Order: sequence, then structure tokens, then C-alpha cells
Amino acid sequence: MREQGSQLRGPLAHHDGSALYVSNPQPNLGESVELSLRACRNLHVDEVYLRVVVDGEPHYTQARLRSQDPQEQWWTATVEIVNHITSYRFRLDTAAGSLWLNAGGLHRHDIPDAQDFRLTTYQLPTWTNSAVIYQIFPDRFARSPRQRNETYPDWALPAQWSDPVAANTPEGVRQIYGGSLYGIEEHLDYIQQLGANTIYLTPFFPARSNHRYDASTFAHVDPLLGGDQALRSLTNAAHLRSMHVLGDLTLNHSGVTHEWFAKGQADPDSPEAGFYYFDRQAGTYATFDGVESLPKFDHRSAELRRRLYDGPQSVVARYIRDFGLDGWRIDVAQSAGKYRGVDLSDLVAERTHATMSATRSNLLLLAEHQFDASPTLQGPGWQGAMAYAAFTKPVWAWLGACLRENAWGAPGPAERFGGNDMADIMQEYASLVPWQSFAASMTLLDSHDTARFRSVAGPYQSLGVALLMTLPGIPSVFSGDEVGIGGSGLEEGRQPFPWNENSWDRPLYQLYRSLIALRHEHPCLSQGGLRWLNCGQEFVTFERADAHETLLVQVNRGEHSPVISTVNAANLLGGPDLTAGQTMPTQAPSFHIWRINKQE
Amino acid sequence: MREQGSQLRGPLAHHDGSALYVSNPQPNLGESVELSLRACRNLHVDEVYLRVVVDGEPHYTQARLRSQDPQEQWWTATVEIVNHITSYRFRLDTAAGSLWLNAGGLHRHDIPDAQDFRLTTYQLPTWTNSAVIYQIFPDRFARSPRQRNETYPDWALPAQWSDPVAANTPEGVRQIYGGSLYGIEEHLDYIQQLGANTIYLTPFFPARSNHRYDASTFAHVDPLLGGDQALRSLTNAAHLRSMHVLGDLTLNHSGVTHEWFAKGQADPDSPEAGFYYFDRQAGTYATFDGVESLPKFDHRSAELRRRLYDGPQSVVARYIRDFGLDGWRIDVAQSAGKYRGVDLSDLVAERTHATMSATRSNLLLLAEHQFDASPTLQGPGWQGAMAYAAFTKPVWAWLGACLRENAWGAPGPAERFGGNDMADIMQEYASLVPWQSFAASMTLLDSHDTARFRSVAGPYQSLGVALLMTLPGIPSVFSGDEVGIGGSGLEEGRQPFPWNENSWDRPLYQLYRSLIALRHEHPCLSQGGLRWLNCGQEFVTFERADAHETLLVQVNRGEHSPVISTVNAANLLGGPDLTAGQTMPTQAPSFHIWRINKQE
Repeated sequence: MREQGSQLRGPLAHHDGSALYVSNPQPNLGESVELSLRACRNLHVDEVYLRVVVDGEPHYTQARLRSQDPQEQWWTATVEIVNHITSYRFRLDTAAGSLWLNAGGLHRHDIPDAQDFRLTTYQLPTWTNSAVIYQIFPDRFARSPRQRNETYPDWALPAQWSDPVAANTPEGVRQIYGGSLYGIEEHLDYIQQLGANTIYLTPFFPARSNHRYDASTFAHVDPLLGGDQALRSLTNAAHLRSMHVLGDLTLNHSGVTHEWFAKGQADPDSPEAGFYYFDRQAGTYATFDGVESLPKFDHRSAELRRRLYDGPQSVVARYIRDFGLDGWRIDVAQSAGKYRGVDLSDLVAERTHATMSATRSNLLLLAEHQFDASPTLQGPGWQGAMAYAAFTKPVWAWLGACLRENAWGAPGPAERFGGNDMADIMQEYASLVPWQSFAASMTLLDSHDTARFRSVAGPYQSLGVALLMTLPGIPSVFSGDEVGIGGSGLEEGRQPFPWNENSWDRPLYQLYRSLIALRHEHPCLSQGGLRWLNCGQEFVTFERADAHETLLVQVNRGEHSPVISTVNAANLLGGPDLTAGQTMPTQAPSFHIWRINKQE
Repeated sequence: MREQGSQLRGPLAHHDGSALYVSNPQPNLGESVELSLRACRNLHVDEVYLRVVVDGEPHYTQARLRSQDPQEQWWTATVEIVNHITSYRFRLDTAAGSLWLNAGGLHRHDIPDAQDFRLTTYQLPTWTNSAVIYQIFPDRFARSPRQRNETYPDWALPAQWSDPVAANTPEGVRQIYGGSLYGIEEHLDYIQQLGANTIYLTPFFPARSNHRYDASTFAHVDPLLGGDQALRSLTNAAHLRSMHVLGDLTLNHSGVTHEWFAKGQADPDSPEAGFYYFDRQAGTYATFDGVESLPKFDHRSAELRRRLYDGPQSVVARYIRDFGLDGWRIDVAQSAGKYRGVDLSDLVAERTHATMSATRSNLLLLAEHQFDASPTLQGPGWQGAMAYAAFTKPVWAWLGACLRENAWGAPGPAERFGGNDMADIMQEYASLVPWQSFAASMTLLDSHDTARFRSVAGPYQSLGVALLMTLPGIPSVFSGDEVGIGGSGLEEGRQPFPWNENSWDRPLYQLYRSLIALRHEHPCLSQGGLRWLNCGQEFVTFERADAHETLLVQVNRGEHSPVISTVNAANLLGGPDLTAGQTMPTQAPSFHIWRINKQE
């Protein structure tokens, strides 16, 4: 007998780091925390034990049955926070034997600690709970009458706003369109109307390229962008609107024209001679990925650490204290501090974090990490990462209909998965880090470093936006995505923002606004727990929940066999209300967001 | 249609860190290594790429097809060793899509790095390749005419060799049976005849108990055991026989009667005051697991580190240099350096390792870790662990027929799994560490800290011994296991060695000798690769292979549906030859070891 459709259902038991299951997700040493889990009644759970590792040794606490209804039970145990990182899992004793629940799911036998749930005492800024990031490549967002460039550096090629981007030519990195920090300040209204409240600026330090990842100094803001005054003016204006501003700093390398590099190269006895890996005999130096214009920093130099990120005189501290930045995105974090036999990457992350904590509270430290960032997100280092591996890549693999080549340096054709694979990958990466690091990581569909998602996903673009705005993480929009900018390569995508609204994809813009507004109206979308429900090749469903409400999200890429709803739920976006016993939508592409009715 | 039996088969693709797949398993920086994998022909692999993380970024190298036969292909790629830890995996491009192969197996989508294969530049002593450890609790192995105790410390209760152990009474830790290091030296013949070549001594420092994990000094060897002279004599005698001797040191705590503790407690201005976590106001101090006689070390004290393990004057260095030890087993490594907000556990491991490397080459550093040791086994820290989680517990869960209570502090009844679960757990733990750390870890069926395996496994004891001697790791025998000592608790098991051979379980002793001899005769059992083949609730099969031969092992706990052999193989131990197309043995309990005939 073939069933008409599967029933909508969640995992047999669930816990995550959200406030629905953790009474205090950011505890201090010595505080107590109540940890809860829910289990289906048909698991027939007799007892639940919480296993917590304290000073390296597991301890067991029996949980109490807090409540139950015909469908499920809630069990709660109390843990005292002894260590900065508290690693824990649950044992569910059932008539059929014991099961372990960790962030990787249910297991019928012993498991290593790698996917244990983790609580940390490392505090996140409260404003990240509701943050939506707008990523701006400063040269390309908006010009300002307050910043008219009369002269240009020798490398720069001035461009008109309507000029095409000289993508994939030597001129590509030299075009200066003349956007400035003043221009951003003058368009804060636009950003706020979209619903974003946090600006992430790609680098603003002087360099020899329009992307500025080859800094020639960290002493001041590039005059082409308005200089120091423009940055102070922007952060002040943003703060008056309760917006936040993140800077972008490369700790992995500088430009070859950096003043430190020049000194260090000229004078082997200078402090700066220790800032890079000079090979004096060969006349060479270590670089990032073989690019001669990007000499790699040698973090064994305490003086380099002091200048860059260790202590109050560092670049990291100064731009927060003197310029009002609310945090940093650290470029190429996956490689910073690593070179051949040297690996000081943990030191780089931990000292940067410590310096920021000592400078001001409520700051955010994000790592660019294009691969598996999980070992670096355990607490003392980066607070979150750009979720390329944990979000962007699995979304591209499911929705990247237009993608031909593999991205991120891998050979061969683009990876293609089903929705269930996408969900598996997202869960697996999330399972390896504390929930706070997962929730504080920047989710993104694209960036200045990738093709535009529009050109990746084609007909599935809106599905990606729905995932971005309904899954955990700090969602980020690369400026222009919301109005329909495309681009099949990273330079193609760095187009000047089209301020002529006639050129916009209006329905797309409205979709972004609606989804961001929905995220703000329903805090469970940013801070709530996440339970993946039915997923298949062509669709995914999941639940976001806090103490106040539970939202249900379904994203359909293609036609699929129907799923029977087990709940009544009110439509919030994308379709009709849902009735228990009725089929959920199967048309595709489509997405649907419902609020589940209480008392069911 | 129901088949008569499944066919014996291995995984569709395989690689591990053994010499069959890695041309140089212990490379230095700058050297090249050839990495090979084998894949079934019916996977239809078109291309293979090696993905290696270099300075934090993945790089891809295309592999070449080295050889193929009708069953399988061998692919090889070359990697230059750039970092101390080289993390890699393979991508197999097939007509049906790409598959990733890491130490966790084959995956159809992207995976985190946690189970990447890993090569390290941290060198292991060559003698561990063929080591078989004999664990001795010095008071209980053998008396010697050279050591007659006339006087005893106040705490000691002298016992006759035939006295019963006062297990689970206050007297249990006070009984002194009078075994000594001289006694061990005089029975090296016995140990060698068994086939063991490495002695692991539980602590020999003076203390207030017969187990001596509560040291009162590290300045000299306990006179009750023969003192300094007896240790020098033992290591000299062992080295003349090409045997090795490991000591046992607690870096987590000392005894409350330790001279350092007395000084530190008496004088808050002494250096020793910083060696422990004294709370002067409350008049208390931090302890190991709440045991007042075991004050915990505070590793923030550089002077403590210098005295214990950091540098040439340390206990770690001195007993190697001056007493000839060949390595250390570090007690309670899971907790050493961890206390509340302090976590210096990596520093403890790395400095101990560095001190040993600077003292003499070819030393072994093993951690006692009763739980998941994998994060501490990545290379710079412990070289291996006592494989409680990765070996002992899964074996007990499969073969522990007589076990009632859960061990290792977990509440409830003993865990019981199938053989397939045991294999899964072993594979999962192994997948999280470099192969070298896996191969250098001490496998054990029991120890002075557990019940005797005989009392755990009952009718399955011989199956456990077979697993111990045919799986990777450095197998260890707790003195007396081989002649049939039992004991359902740790103190019950610490019986004096029964030198009257009439009391021995002779078939068991012969089994130990045969299996150890087989391990020495077939280096693939210690150093070869490991491929798990068919496993079920009641049986496991696996293959150990090097360039010279491939052994096939089957262990049957209970009756099970038959497996059809796909190979011809010659019986080495346990049963008849094997013929392709014929059923493999199903009677139980039984184990079988075959050598697969070449040219198949």
C-alpha cells in the first residue's frame, strides 16, 4: 500500500541552545542554568539524565519531568556553570534501551564529545539578537556632494556611475566609482526602510585597489572615501538611529605598499622586519596564496600583535574607541596566523576578542571563514563566522540552478544536492559549535567575494531569501541584492548601486522588505529554537519557536509527494492557512510561513 | 527472495593512515608523501581529487590511477607537507556525482573537517610498532629476596601473598603485599615468554596507599619497592632484553602528604603556595573529584610546571634521563590543568611532550583518558591515550555478558550493543584523530582501574583477547589477565600474581601467547591498515593489511545468518581454511584469523 503522503513530523527528541530550552543562554561562572528537552511520547522515555563534562570529567544529573501532553514530554535538569565552556548531552532511558541526544541527533550508543551541546560564558552583544546586516562595498554604494575627488592616486581609474564594471580585466580592481562613507550616511534612510539595522563596510583603509584588502596603512581612513571625518560622521549618524557599524580588517596580510612592509623590507633591524616572513637571502617574502602584492603577517612578533589587535593601542581597539565602530569582520580568518610550521591562529582570535572586550561592551567579532570554521568558534576566539560553509554553500548546492562551475576553488562542476542534504549539512556544521556561535554567525546568500545569488539561483532566488530570513544566524544582504543586481562572478557583482528605481526588480525588493519585517515582528525567527521537520530532495520544512509562538516554514524547490499537516496554522507569508489533516502546498517554486495555532 | 547469506565485502572506497596508503606516515616539513586510496570498480570512479588544507585553505590535487584489476582501482596523489598537521580528504567523481571520502567513510555531500584524515610531523618511537604492554601494579606482581621490608610506614598493613584482597573496605588501599621492582626484574623471563616487551608500571613514588596515586614526593622511588636502585636495575635489565619501561605520573594532583603541599599550605609566601588552589580564608583547597587526600595542582604556576614537566629539571625529564624510563603514562590526563575558569590542559600536554622530545628520542607519552580523548590527540600533545572510550567501552558493551552496572560513573545498567555498534564506535573515535595517535594509543580490556575482563565477559573473554591482539593500537595486558585472574571491581582485581601454575587457566594462557606471537609474526596486525567488513549484532569481520599480506579476522559472539566468503584464505588461528563461495563459520562464541591467498 502506498500512502497518500507522509505526515508532518519533527525529530523524536529535541534540544537546542535557544531560550526555549536553556533558561540562561549566556551564563556566568557559578550561575545555574535549567536545560530542557522535549521527547515524543511514543519514545516511551522512563528517565532522562543530563551528562555534563566538568573539569574534564562527565557528571550525571537526573532530569525531572516538567510537563507532558498526549504528544510529548518536557524534561528539565539543572546545571551549575563551572567552566567557561560547558559540554553536555542527554541520556534518555527507554524500555528499548538508552539513547543519547546531542546536537547531532539521537544515537543508540556512546558517541564522542564533538557534537555535544555547548554553553559558554563568552558574552554576545544583545543587539545581534535582532540584527540584519547590510553589506556595503564603499566605492559602489553612493556618492555624496560632501566628497568630490579632485585628484586620484596613480593606480586609480575614475569611472562614471553608469560605466560597466571592467570585470576580469586588470582594470577591474582599479576602477573608482566614487562612492564614499558620506554617501552611505546620506542613505541610511534607505537602509532602514529595507529593514536592515547593521552596516558591514568592506575595508576603508587606503590601498592600491578599490576593494582595499591590500591596505597601505591602518593609520587613517582612505581620503577617497571621505577620510577619518566621514567614518566618525557615519558611525555617529548610525548610532542616532540605533544602527551599528562593523569594520573590515585583514589580520592575515597587508598590501605590499603598506608602510610597515616598506620599513621592514628596507631595515632588517627595524621592528617591522619581524612583521612579515622575509627571506633576505632569496629576496622574497611569504604571501597570501602566492599573490605578491599581499605579504603575509608573522604573528610571532609581539610588536605586530600590539599594533594590530593586542591591547588599547591596536588598530582593533582604536577604531572602536576613536571612530565608534561596533565590531569587526576579520578578513581571511581561516589563514591568519598560519604559515608553514607556525600556527598562532588561536592566539590571533583570542587576543582580538580580549582586546575588544576590554575596549567596550556589546561589540561583535566575526571571522571571514570560507570553509569549516567550527574549531575556531568554540568561545574564546571569534564570536561568529561568515557562514559560507554552514549556510551559503548548502543553499547554493540546493538552489544554485544557474551555477555551472564549482566555487571556492574546488575543481569540477557545481555541487548539486537535495533539500534534505542541505538540511543535513546545516545541522552538521551547527552541531559542532556552541549555539551562541551558530546564532551569531553571519548568514549570507552572496558577498563581494562571490557571484550574485540572483545569477546563481535564477528562478529560486526568492527561496534563498526566505531561508536567509527565517533560519538562525545574523542575515546579511549584499547591497543591491534586494533590487535585483546580478553578476556571475565576484567583480561582475560589484556594480554601483542603481539609484534609479525604474531599474529595480520591485517584487523582489518588496519580498526582501516583507521578510525582514517578518523577522523583526517575530523574534523567534532570530532567537528561537530550530527543529528541522520533513525534508526531501525538493522541499524542506522546519520550525522556529520561542516561548510565545511557533512558526512553521516550508520551502519547495520542485514538485514533490504531498505532506499532510498535523497542525492548524495561520498564513503569515506565501500562502493559505494550514489545516490539520490537509495536504501542505506542493506547487513549486514556493515558500510558506505560518504561525501554528496554540492549544494543539 | 531471501538470500542464503550476505557476501563478505568491504567498504566501497577506503584509505587510512597506514603504510599501505601513506608512503611516509611520519613525514617532516617539506617532504612529499604519496597518498593512495582504493575504490571498488562498481563505484565507477572517473576522477579522484585530493583535498589538502594548507595554511588554513583547501587545495586540490588530481590523483592518478595507479593500478586496477577487475575488482578495484588504486588512485594516488602526492602532497607536500607544509604544516605540522596536514588535514586531507578525497573527492571521488563518479557518473552519479561526487563523493567525499574521509575517515568517517563515504559522503555524498560536503562535510566538516572534523573527520578529515590527518598526517602529523610529530614523531612516534619506532619501538611502539611492535610493542605489547604488560601492566604491573608493583605491589602485587612479585616479591624478591633482594627486597625484604623490615619496617613499614604507619598507614601500611603488611599482607601475605595468599591473603585475600580487602576490597571495598578502608583497608583495601593499605594492604602491602610486598611486591617490588626487583621482583619484576627477576620475572622478565616470564613477561618475555608471554610475548610482551614493554612494561607499564603504575606509580612507584612514595605515597600513603598501595596504588600510590597520592604521591608524597617525586624525589625518589618508594623504598618499599626497592627505591631508586631497584628502578635503575629494572630499566637496565629490561633494556638488555630490548624491552621498554613506562612510568606513571599524576599531573592532576598530588597526595595531601606531598612535601610541596605541606610547604604551600604552611607558607603563603612560598613558591609551593602557588602549586595548588588554596582558599586561605575558607581553609580549603581544590581537590580531584572531591577527594580531600588529592589536592589539585594549579598549572598557572610556572615553577610548578618547571618542577613537574617543563624543562630538564622536571620530574618528567629526570626519570627518563637518570633512571632510564622509556616514557610516561600520565594519570587523569582528562582533568590535568582544568579547574573551573582555568584550562591549561593543552599547555600541560604540549610542554610534557616537548620536554620529553628534548630529553631523549624514541620515548612514548600516553594519557590516561577515560572519555573522549580525541581533542587532545591531534599531535602536539599526548602521543596516544589509554583507549578506554575508543576500545575498552565498546568491547565491554558487546562482550560484557556478566556486567550488570554501568561503569565509568554513568548511572543505570551496563550498556549493551551489537558488534556492528562496537565497530561503529571504534571507527568514529578513530576518525577524529591522526592515524598515528590511533595506532599509538594503548588498547586494553581492563586495568587496575576497572573490573577484570574475565569477570566482565565470562564466556566471551577469549573473543576480547582476539580483538585486543588483532586491532590497531598498542595492546596491553593487565598482569594476571593471562592466567585467569578475575575480580568484579577494581580492588577485587588487584590480586597478587598467582605464581603457582596449578591455579592458572592454562588454555587461556596459551591463547594469550598464541595471539601475541601471531601479532609479532604478522606486522600487519600492529602496523597494517584496518578495513571493517561485514558486521552484525552477533559478529564482526575486518581486514588488516600491509604490502606483504592481508589477514582476515572474524569474531562471532552468537549465532548469526551466514556470510559467504569471497576469498580463499589459510587458517592461522581458530578454524579451517576459507574457500571463496563457501559459508564462513557461524558457530559461537568463536574467533578466526586467516591469511588471504594472494592473486585473487
